[in-house]
Amino acid sequence: VITGTTRLYGIIGDPVHAVRSPALFNAAFARLGLDAVFLPLHAAAEELERAWRGLTALRNLDGLVVTMPHKAAVVPLLDALGPTARLTGTVNTARRLPDGRWEGDMFDGEGFVAGLRANGHDPRGMRVLQVGCGSAGRAIAFAVARAGVASLDLADAAPGRAAELAGAVARAFPGVRARAGAPLPDGHGLVVNATPMGLAPGDPPPLDPARLRAGQVVADVIPNPEVTSLIAAARASGCATVTGRAMHEGQARLAAAFLGIAGWEG
Amino acid sequence: VITGTTRLYGIIGDPVHAVRSPALFNAAFARLGLDAVFLPLHAAAEELERAWRGLTALRNLDGLVVTMPHKAAVVPLLDALGPTARLTGTVNTARRLPDGRWEGDMFDGEGFVAGLRANGHDPRGMRVLQVGCGSAGRAIAFAVARAGVASLDLADAAPGRAAELAGAVARAFPGVRARAGAPLPDGHGLVVNATPMGLAPGDPPPLDPARLRAGQVVADVIPNPEVTSLIAAARASGCATVTGRAMHEGQARLAAAFLGIAGWEG
Repeated sequence: VITGTTRLYGIIGDPVHAVRSPALFNAAFARLGLDAVFLPLHAAAEELERAWRGLTALRNLDGLVVTMPHKAAVVPLLDALGPTARLTGTVNTARRLPDGRWEGDMFDGEGFVAGLRANGHDPRGMRVLQVGCGSAGRAIAFAVARAGVASLDLADAAPGRAAELAGAVARAFPGVRARAGAPLPDGHGLVVNATPMGLAPGDPPPLDPARLRAGQVVADVIPNPEVTSLIAAARASGCATVTGRAMHEGQARLAAAFLGIAGWEG
Repeated sequence: VITGTTRLYGIIGDPVHAVRSPALFNAAFARLGLDAVFLPLHAAAEELERAWRGLTALRNLDGLVVTMPHKAAVVPLLDALGPTARLTGTVNTARRLPDGRWEGDMFDGEGFVAGLRANGHDPRGMRVLQVGCGSAGRAIAFAVARAGVASLDLADAAPGRAAELAGAVARAFPGVRARAGAPLPDGHGLVVNATPMGLAPGDPPPLDPARLRAGQVVADVIPNPEVTSLIAAARASGCATVTGRAMHEGQARLAAAFLGIAGWEG
């Protein structure tokens, strides 16, 4: 029951109709007996700063999760940044500090790796193909590199974006062979979709599903629909799959810890 | 259940811990099967503009109820004002118009009169003493004048405030004898507390309860605690009483209609 004492949290993005965080967090709040509510907050890119300044002025709002397309744009609006936010230049969670300032950090990548591990796939030593080098892809690339993959091949439809990210990952993690290339899954143990392809019905696949082979692990960042056309094709080819739901639950658990929500078991 | 498609409403004020609107509106949303949620929004006076600009930038937020101390301060932040907002210079409800602009109007006074009538007391022809001429008092004074009271005696601890309001009411409603004076209930059929006295435990009473007499109607604007020390003293003296809860339910019904929430039966 929401009353005048209820604390507020939310996820800010555009669009927000498919976000799963409100269901996850509100179920956890109920389970934990917390007087708190988690909301969808729909702000267009051109109104992000105005919305952010206003939301963070509310004294009963304690935390914000940030989703597309705001993960990079929100960085200059924060008073303090955690280590992964500084590394990736993106933020997916922000909290009010005791002195009233707002601190952000990025858990998309670590959430993705946690989702892999929760499904029995440790990325250590794997050869990885990742398609998509936007904000989510950036976070995932650094996180799988930190997790000790053998190599990381990056592909992106935008010219230069994969090469830029490969260079940044190689500088931060010299032990990982990070390169830009084509979205060809041949010979990779782990294939990752970090593009938005699959969110909308009829989206083209992010890579050619006919090239997938049994024994590969195929992971998608899209939580809703949980079974994207890529995940369906991978299953039909005998691949192991990890859906965006696993990544999302991993992210939510890490975001909850950052937000000081004790006892979470997303 | 809150999901990405849930529409947002809220009450903005300082403090908000005792507001009853979230309980009233969320119960109505559940009864009506609406995918909407009503929130407490805690904004200090010095951050009202920043909070307001940010909240009204959210595309899934459709309406705001305004409470102390923002009812006058919010007026210049609105794009359009309804007739009672223009008359009183205060706003208690604002809605997003189809073109994206925000329109505000004031229903505190009409809600108070509705609460009186719901309890069987029509103010028409009554001699009224009202203590408190702030934003709520201003709205109530105009509304009871519009409802056709015979006379309206206004008292306020702030020098000149009662006289200013009495003059404004007399100009708008020449048939009502509106005057400033002392908070003495003697000879009045209806006695109204429109001060915040009674919100906090140990507040002094807004008028001398020993002067109340059986047969008078005593109404209080404070919804929580519902039985203020004034209401308790009035009952002990044999007065009829109308609590802030009745006013608040009347306000909520009128605010809901302004917000386009069909089927409300607060």
